[in-house]
Amino acid sequence: MTEPTDFLRFDGRALDEMRPVRITRNFTSNPAGSVLVEFGNTRVMCTASIELGVPRFKKDSGEGWLTAEYAMLPSSTHERMPRESMKGKVKGRTHEIGRLVGRSLRAAVDLSQLGENTINIDCDVLQADGGTRTASITGAYVALADAIAVLTEKGVVPGRPLREPVAAVSVGLVDGRICLDLPYEEDSRAEVDLNVVMTAEGKYVEIQGTGEHGEFGREELNAMLDVADKGTRELHALQIAALGA
Amino acid sequence: MTEPTDFLRFDGRALDEMRPVRITRNFTSNPAGSVLVEFGNTRVMCTASIELGVPRFKKDSGEGWLTAEYAMLPSSTHERMPRESMKGKVKGRTHEIGRLVGRSLRAAVDLSQLGENTINIDCDVLQADGGTRTASITGAYVALADAIAVLTEKGVVPGRPLREPVAAVSVGLVDGRICLDLPYEEDSRAEVDLNVVMTAEGKYVEIQGTGEHGEFGREELNAMLDVADKGTRELHALQIAALGA
Amino acid sequence: MTEPTDFLRFDGRALDEMRPVRITRNFTSNPAGSVLVEFGNTRVMCTASIELGVPRFKKDSGEGWLTAEYAMLPSSTHERMPRESMKGKVKGRTHEIGRLVGRSLRAAVDLSQLGENTINIDCDVLQADGGTRTASITGAYVALADAIAVLTEKGVVPGRPLREPVAAVSVGLVDGRICLDLPYEEDSRAEVDLNVVMTAEGKYVEIQGTGEHGEFGREELNAMLDVADKGTRELHALQIAALGA
Amino acid sequence: MTEPTDFLRFDGRALDEMRPVRITRNFTSNPAGSVLVEFGNTRVMCTASIELGVPRFKKDSGEGWLTAEYAMLPSSTHERMPRESMKGKVKGRTHEIGRLVGRSLRAAVDLSQLGENTINIDCDVLQADGGTRTASITGAYVALADAIAVLTEKGVVPGRPLREPVAAVSVGLVDGRICLDLPYEEDSRAEVDLNVVMTAEGKYVEIQGTGEHGEFGREELNAMLDVADKGTRELHALQIAALGA
Amino acid sequence: MTEPTDFLRFDGRALDEMRPVRITRNFTSNPAGSVLVEFGNTRVMCTASIELGVPRFKKDSGEGWLTAEYAMLPSSTHERMPRESMKGKVKGRTHEIGRLVGRSLRAAVDLSQLGENTINIDCDVLQADGGTRTASITGAYVALADAIAVLTEKGVVPGRPLREPVAAVSVGLVDGRICLDLPYEEDSRAEVDLNVVMTAEGKYVEIQGTGEHGEFGREELNAMLDVADKGTRELHALQIAALGA
Amino acid sequence: MTEPTDFLRFDGRALDEMRPVRITRNFTSNPAGSVLVEFGNTRVMCTASIELGVPRFKKDSGEGWLTAEYAMLPSSTHERMPRESMKGKVKGRTHEIGRLVGRSLRAAVDLSQLGENTINIDCDVLQADGGTRTASITGAYVALADAIAVLTEKGVVPGRPLREPVAAVSVGLVDGRICLDLPYEEDSRAEVDLNVVMTAEGKYVEIQGTGEHGEFGREELNAMLDVADKGTRELHALQIAALGA
Repeated sequence: MTEPTDFLRFDGRALDEMRPVRITRNFTSNPAGSVLVEFGNTRVMCTASIELGVPRFKKDSGEGWLTAEYAMLPSSTHERMPRESMKGKVKGRTHEIGRLVGRSLRAAVDLSQLGENTINIDCDVLQADGGTRTASITGAYVALADAIAVLTEKGVVPGRPLREPVAAVSVGLVDGRICLDLPYEEDSRAEVDLNVVMTAEGKYVEIQGTGEHGEFGREELNAMLDVADKGTRELHALQIAALGA
Repeated sequence: MTEPTDFLRFDGRALDEMRPVRITRNFTSNPAGSVLVEFGNTRVMCTASIELGVPRFKKDSGEGWLTAEYAMLPSSTHERMPRESMKGKVKGRTHEIGRLVGRSLRAAVDLSQLGENTINIDCDVLQADGGTRTASITGAYVALADAIAVLTEKGVVPGRPLREPVAAVSVGLVDGRICLDLPYEEDSRAEVDLNVVMTAEGKYVEIQGTGEHGEFGREELNAMLDVADKGTRELHALQIAALGA
Repeated sequence: MTEPTDFLRFDGRALDEMRPVRITRNFTSNPAGSVLVEFGNTRVMCTASIELGVPRFKKDSGEGWLTAEYAMLPSSTHERMPRESMKGKVKGRTHEIGRLVGRSLRAAVDLSQLGENTINIDCDVLQADGGTRTASITGAYVALADAIAVLTEKGVVPGRPLREPVAAVSVGLVDGRICLDLPYEEDSRAEVDLNVVMTAEGKYVEIQGTGEHGEFGREELNAMLDVADKGTRELHALQIAALGA
Repeated sequence: MTEPTDFLRFDGRALDEMRPVRITRNFTSNPAGSVLVEFGNTRVMCTASIELGVPRFKKDSGEGWLTAEYAMLPSSTHERMPRESMKGKVKGRTHEIGRLVGRSLRAAVDLSQLGENTINIDCDVLQADGGTRTASITGAYVALADAIAVLTEKGVVPGRPLREPVAAVSVGLVDGRICLDLPYEEDSRAEVDLNVVMTAEGKYVEIQGTGEHGEFGREELNAMLDVADKGTRELHALQIAALGA
Repeated sequence: MTEPTDFLRFDGRALDEMRPVRITRNFTSNPAGSVLVEFGNTRVMCTASIELGVPRFKKDSGEGWLTAEYAMLPSSTHERMPRESMKGKVKGRTHEIGRLVGRSLRAAVDLSQLGENTINIDCDVLQADGGTRTASITGAYVALADAIAVLTEKGVVPGRPLREPVAAVSVGLVDGRICLDLPYEEDSRAEVDLNVVMTAEGKYVEIQGTGEHGEFGREELNAMLDVADKGTRELHALQIAALGA
Repeated sequence: MTEPTDFLRFDGRALDEMRPVRITRNFTSNPAGSVLVEFGNTRVMCTASIELGVPRFKKDSGEGWLTAEYAMLPSSTHERMPRESMKGKVKGRTHEIGRLVGRSLRAAVDLSQLGENTINIDCDVLQADGGTRTASITGAYVALADAIAVLTEKGVVPGRPLREPVAAVSVGLVDGRICLDLPYEEDSRAEVDLNVVMTAEGKYVEIQGTGEHGEFGREELNAMLDVADKGTRELHALQIAALGA
């Protein structure tokens, strides 16, 4: 994956190269944790807020809960999208990504150490250019870490609920080549699209591979997973660096 | 994966054994294709109906479209579930599975051979015991094939849109063992849950692996994919047999 | 109502003859009672589920409650119907029939013998060919009887709430002739449409007669009621036979 | 139905006596027809408005359509009811009555004489004391007549669509006695409740009898129908008188 | 603002003259207070109902609450408007006016004297001809006063919550002239529209001035406020007279 | 309004002093105009997007239209707010502010110069600390100017639709003193709250004064308007400077 392939991608990146990633902590001041995460032109505001109490199915379990919601601002996309609140209907895609973010972040927290508290993750896309779900997961981990630090200090959270970093990348098969971290231009014409959520220990939390414009074999899957490993390792390093700052 | 493992599962199956699968064509008579699919106690009515015309984003493309909806009857589950129409809200899970079924079945049809027609797939769960989404995909392929045959005969469909069979299975890590085709009892306590949609040519259409109660490594993933291959091969044979009848 | 009239109806039936009726108990296994009822090509899955507790207006009354919901699967009709949950709106007709089924079945149960429990009746139409509401009521009684038997055995239900059978038929004035149990083909062009819900003791629980395409006089009403009496008597016998099996 | 029965009813009426009925035309000035109808303390504003064009299922039929909506003002009942628009859900009862009013009034109009126009009937209950649906139908006929007169004069309506008067009454079995035109106090404890919609020619348009607190036999039905005949005859006379004024 | 200007307005009024205002108490009998208010052809039914208890944010405050809803009947306008309950959506304008009525009436009641009770104000427009929000506020005060009198008598309300009258008028700049109390014909072409809510002591509760078809300067504002003062003074006198009757 | 009053406000400002205001153009890149506006800690993303065509009521008028939506991100407030899209209901306050923003911005554009195009303004609050509606209007003007410049250059907009700047401030009576530009801490306990929208020519577009916790007289109104004049003049200068950059 050396030589001329660098020239292949329209933005000058190598096939297995992430877009520039920036993680800005304390982006806003009201939530316990608030992060602006940028994967190239994709920008997502990720926040973590605490709420006393847990949903009914967790009542009297002694454990906490974590839930997540995802949304795109109407002006985040190239063509303005109608606002879901005004239509009175939430799209399936919105639900689907919110659920994915929630499952991914629950892997980053030991609910039994949280007390009967609920953490609400909100990922609001300010600008969309592909990879909004992977940026959301990656940024939300940092917001979660900040929120837990605040809550531990205040004595709201009894234990040490934070687990090792969780990050996510997309990998795609575009014109027959495996590319890491797809912007919209590539994503919209990828034959196969794979989203991978990994822990810093190198374990999978979630794998979602879709071949809507072309199926894929086991070999391609393994090659894509290799690239995803590289991408998430880099993101874990950035998360740790951001939190160390 | 031989010996005493046969005794492991509560229903007497071997680890890599499917539940009894039945595919009943012409289950109802109004839709162009109507199938009752059973994976053990899981029973789903899968239908395929044709509609003249295509959604706006496909207008004047010369191509057709396929869309799918999934729902559980309120009395299909052990505890009755509130009816989504009455609550006025569709759950995220419902949307998510409908979208998965749609993507999977679009891999089984050549939209350019369909003319500007829309195929509506409906998967309605009559009885739920785990694997409703994999049964839905598997049964819907047969309903789709029947519908296309009817429509070709009537001259509505101009070309030969049907592609090779698409089937789906779930594989899980339950108490540390890899099990094929999880019923509810196993599904609810699986550490890892993997759904695999494959074509009869052995290519992946969709892979969704979730480790909500425990992450998983590359080796486990590969072992689970091996078992999924076995399961989908068996289902493809059953689909072909059902359609040959 | 003897001779050549047999030849009148397009399906070969006599004017006062029911379509073949089948009642299949234990159609699914999760609800306390589950019945598939067929009136000719009309097929409805009727279930009865129990829920501890009662709605607010019955709290502390010492009595139970029974409520019912009716729905058509989108693929049950000749032309596929949009799914009500996806539209976010339930049609007036759906509400109206659910309420009719509830009132009819409450006549079959002594709420004071039920304890503070709620029975939920669900009637989901798998295939529609006229008479879905009358089939729903007729089948739901059998599901209700099964559910009460289960609950009595488990000790959930304190008394003997089941009352004598309740069944329903439609009668119509089609091309000036009184016909029993109208399929869609006759129903859609009937001048007058009468639905009658009766107890096995020969009392009316509900009568709904509508003359949208032509009014009717007292004599015609009485003649239609005579035919309805015949139909419901036959259904009561079938209900009793089914439960005796 | 002679002697002391006059003394039976709490408001001093004879068993087969209507409450005082008043029909006020031109109650408001914007709709083509606007009537305030009073059955005792029940007061309903009934209006008829015209709209050019017909719903899709009537397009190019050369015929018109009539549709109706019914609603109760939140303050119309003894205990204030939540406003349906604010809850975002219309109750089944509301839908059911709107549909009944629509069917009843369609019997009063020859759609083929209406041109491709739609008449919207609105029945808004200002004060509720039982019998709101029967008052609605009775008053709406007068509003309809006024609207058609206006529209004929303006040349919007080509033919003579108005048919003979349609009126409705409720009859109930209260403490074992058959009573005409039930106020709330009687309605809420009636064993049987029968609503009858009749034309001035003495034909039935709709009959709805419900025995939620006790079934009824053919004899009781016939006795109730006799009383309903008396009531609707009186209402037809009042409608004709109101329109003659 | 003397001379021939009287002839200016299409209905013959002087520029600073209100339309005939009528306040009818006890318009309906179920709510604690019920008023029909008329500003010319605008007619609004205003009711005040009491409910035990307060919303969550007022629990255990020892204080009461007052809330208001506003709606137009579908047939109240020149062209029939679709019914908001049927569309499942409440328009922004409806919400906006309901909130204005609530704020205005809360200025007329000392919540600390109300006990933990909630007053629900409902303003339902029967006929609309401009000024429906100002008529609503003016009429609702009288309904509120009646309701408080009833509740004080019954001992439900512990203190003396009623404060001095609150009334509202609209003033507009129409064709460059300042006009009081605009009917629809003037309102729809006004350059500036000002709604003023005042107490009988001459203090402002709410001022809303909008220059959608032309901005306005401080001088024009002051001139409009002078006219509004005149209008509200007249309305306060009418409110007091109505309550004195 | 000189001397020690500077010390009065908890954030050290003089009574008639704005918080620091920042206007950042090109905040995001997809919409035609995108601005981040900050009034102290209040931060709103304001965008202007163009859409070909106009709503039905403007069809064939030769004119354009401008509409606006306002929303708060769930994590923008001190306590996280439930997401309106998930609740399926938009709050009255949200509607009310969106409508205010729309009216205000329509005063800044000559619709007859816009061609049959629609401008969509979106104001999404990232962080809320009082004055979100006034910041929205002020920032949206700059986004609108940028959008119109882009569209004029592209030849989409035929004329010169942009009019002089429109800006908005809040003024309140807090503890008896008139304060400019209230942060949440002051806003929540203000006796009177006045929002003023002004053009750079010193004319009012909208005035909304509310005395929920205390009425106000003409003198106080005039004093508050004086302070609002000062605030909007400063904002107009900042808007012009931002656009000049």
